[in-house]
Amino acid sequence: MAVPLRRVDRNDDGIATAVPVLKQRFGPHCHTGADMRRQHGHTTSWLANEAPDAVVFVTTAQDVEDVLEICRTHGVPVIAFGVGTSLEGHVNAPAGGVSVDFSQMNRIIEVQDEDLTCTVEPGVTRKQLNDFLRDRGLFFPIDPGADASLGGMCATRASGTNAVRYGTMRDNVIALEAVLADGRALKTASRAKKTSAGYDLTRLLIGSEGTLGLITKITLKLHGIPEAISAAVCPFPSVEAACNATILTIQSGIPVARIELLDALQIRAVNAYAKLGLPEQPTLFLEFHGSQSSVTDQSEAVAAIAEELGGGPFSFSTRAEERNKLWQARHDSYWAALGLRPGAAGISTDVCVPISRLAECVADTQADLEELGLLAPIVGHVGDGNFHTLVLVDNDNADERAKATLFLERLAERALTMDGTCTGEHGIGQGKIKYLRRELGDTAVDVMAAIKSTLDPQNILNPGKILS
Amino acid sequence: MAVPLRRVDRNDDGIATAVPVLKQRFGPHCHTGADMRRQHGHTTSWLANEAPDAVVFVTTAQDVEDVLEICRTHGVPVIAFGVGTSLEGHVNAPAGGVSVDFSQMNRIIEVQDEDLTCTVEPGVTRKQLNDFLRDRGLFFPIDPGADASLGGMCATRASGTNAVRYGTMRDNVIALEAVLADGRALKTASRAKKTSAGYDLTRLLIGSEGTLGLITKITLKLHGIPEAISAAVCPFPSVEAACNATILTIQSGIPVARIELLDALQIRAVNAYAKLGLPEQPTLFLEFHGSQSSVTDQSEAVAAIAEELGGGPFSFSTRAEERNKLWQARHDSYWAALGLRPGAAGISTDVCVPISRLAECVADTQADLEELGLLAPIVGHVGDGNFHTLVLVDNDNADERAKATLFLERLAERALTMDGTCTGEHGIGQGKIKYLRRELGDTAVDVMAAIKSTLDPQNILNPGKILS
Repeated sequence: MAVPLRRVDRNDDGIATAVPVLKQRFGPHCHTGADMRRQHGHTTSWLANEAPDAVVFVTTAQDVEDVLEICRTHGVPVIAFGVGTSLEGHVNAPAGGVSVDFSQMNRIIEVQDEDLTCTVEPGVTRKQLNDFLRDRGLFFPIDPGADASLGGMCATRASGTNAVRYGTMRDNVIALEAVLADGRALKTASRAKKTSAGYDLTRLLIGSEGTLGLITKITLKLHGIPEAISAAVCPFPSVEAACNATILTIQSGIPVARIELLDALQIRAVNAYAKLGLPEQPTLFLEFHGSQSSVTDQSEAVAAIAEELGGGPFSFSTRAEERNKLWQARHDSYWAALGLRPGAAGISTDVCVPISRLAECVADTQADLEELGLLAPIVGHVGDGNFHTLVLVDNDNADERAKATLFLERLAERALTMDGTCTGEHGIGQGKIKYLRRELGDTAVDVMAAIKSTLDPQNILNPGKILS
Repeated sequence: MAVPLRRVDRNDDGIATAVPVLKQRFGPHCHTGADMRRQHGHTTSWLANEAPDAVVFVTTAQDVEDVLEICRTHGVPVIAFGVGTSLEGHVNAPAGGVSVDFSQMNRIIEVQDEDLTCTVEPGVTRKQLNDFLRDRGLFFPIDPGADASLGGMCATRASGTNAVRYGTMRDNVIALEAVLADGRALKTASRAKKTSAGYDLTRLLIGSEGTLGLITKITLKLHGIPEAISAAVCPFPSVEAACNATILTIQSGIPVARIELLDALQIRAVNAYAKLGLPEQPTLFLEFHGSQSSVTDQSEAVAAIAEELGGGPFSFSTRAEERNKLWQARHDSYWAALGLRPGAAGISTDVCVPISRLAECVADTQADLEELGLLAPIVGHVGDGNFHTLVLVDNDNADERAKATLFLERLAERALTMDGTCTGEHGIGQGKIKYLRRELGDTAVDVMAAIKSTLDPQNILNPGKILS
């Protein structure tokens, strides 16, 4: 049952044949210019950009089926592309092939207000959806920071700051439609809120990173915009104290909507970038959703926990303006961190551990950074035990690059020894393939490969991702 | 890619060879007596009992591997058995084979209090777990009514009264270990609360009804026991009014822990069974979890909604004794309903529709029952759009049986035309195989069959379930 994946070799002849056919079928929607192709390869600085041979802008499921038919006929890889904000090389084309750009397949098909659901095309971005929903009093909570496409968020099982309360994409997708490698259209589920009708194909596609099918339609769960939203910020004497306050908050069942850790270095960065004047200490940013009385109750409960652990002052605000300023600073943390070392490249990575190990994991990670002499602020969705580091590296300095590589290795290894995962929300892509067997063992990875081989025997759907 | 499943033919020679080998390996833990075998076939009255040829009580993962090795060698079906409370023939042995009884593999391995998780063996029942957790202030919320085993609840993607707030098994399992058809041990995930590490094999096993692997270890999410729990009961002038009150409650974001509909007939049944004296009208039973002030807020908000829709009086209680009496009556609704027609068999079925269609679906179902002259009370987890009917049939009356069959057909069809599912929480088993293609289309079912064939090419794991 250990079915080897078909190797990812570049098929020059197939590509040379398929691209003109695509041009004929898609006319001006098929691009082969160098800039356009490069924009559709991996665009962060760490993993090398591997551009596709062509980029096709699709607008219908039929377009997707046509691209797949042409590529299947000629044995050419097909790589789904949303807005390109993924971080582990998901959109790279290591064996060339065709990038399918969904950005123009972005209609909001229907909002079913009474059911708190909506049906959208995959190119709709989360901000586009929330702008559309606002007047109806509804919102879609998953917020990975970037204004990602919902198709991409499904494909990478995206998560982010609100996940501690609202879950991840895994929890907020009702049903999907997708085109499989062999061109068949798949519907994974009805629109019922729950079901026990057979294997959970919805969840199989979520997080499959475009390797099992191309998503063409998405039905999402929505939530009512809370009556009251408040924010709070609270510095702590140590990362450990901040993590312990988080653990106590979660254990107490306080339904925080967001609970984010920024370490002292990241606070220095956001102070400089957003002119905030926060004390340069490990700090929790919080958000509370609920009724007026509930958000007050919640914030008072967290304030008491924080005080018990030596944290404070606990600043609380229900004013939208202050709240937005705070969360803008959190969302800009990537750019703020880059400002700590102008010209440096930022290598973003994430791990997730059981929350009981979080304080230790963050502290050990900081100690490792210090030992290696690397500059890398830490921010975390700590309510889930998930945190990110952004390693600031001079890409021209081989020694620094080697140290950064060693750091990434050790960080993943550290999370695994704590029964955590090498990636809480960035996915496997190309960058973390090497950790997957260590995390889950051979059987799990072989089962994934067997499923992949069964559904995509030619290995044309995003080859070289998740599985090697 | 349409891989046909291996046919489910009885392999008399294989069975005749395997059973003595199992007896040798398992001694007194391998049973072949008629009673024991019949108890491990389907034990409800509608689907015929199809007993296995042997029953093996396992206590370790090694036992499970050994059973599988012996059965694989001789091409003999293997059917996982928890406590036998599933409703769609999941534990039947249509081609004979070996029932693997997990009831003695029931250790609570570890509770990780700080992480709000625990790791258990599959034979642990939900009540056993909650009794164990009570002193720690924690609980596991999924409550399908029966005191099912957690392994069975994973395998059938169980759900129940608390799902409206806490989700289903899909949402409350962190990781699984399982033995595959070929004997390999699979670990699906780390213990991190969230992950984006490859395909979601945890969710692939949840709801797979023992057809892809035998679950040997489960890591579950736990929740803190709420500070306050209160219950309420409220009659309505019509099923429609009760459903509309439910819709408004959900839309308003009130985090009800339970919201259950009992129709007038079911109220009559529970009045007689539990001596409750409730008005014989469609009635909502509710439960609220939270802080003292939050449960009061929630119940006041629902009371206002109920009044707006002509419901009432809204009786609210924080007294544990009254609450327990109410929910005991709800949980006993199966036995109460049987009391409406002593000697009749009860055929239990469920469907789930988008909540906007719920009132219509329940009303049409009641009208159909009246037209057919069938007695069938309705209870529903209406916050999820999910409801059950228990058709009370004289099994010796062919005409009644035919009408009941017609009713089940029409109910499933009705749910499907409303973009719902033929089964919200009972699963497919044997009984609903005929609806699965209608619900999801050929591609989805063929993909399920392809996955099944890849992981279990001999089709020895619970053959004849989900897929035919």
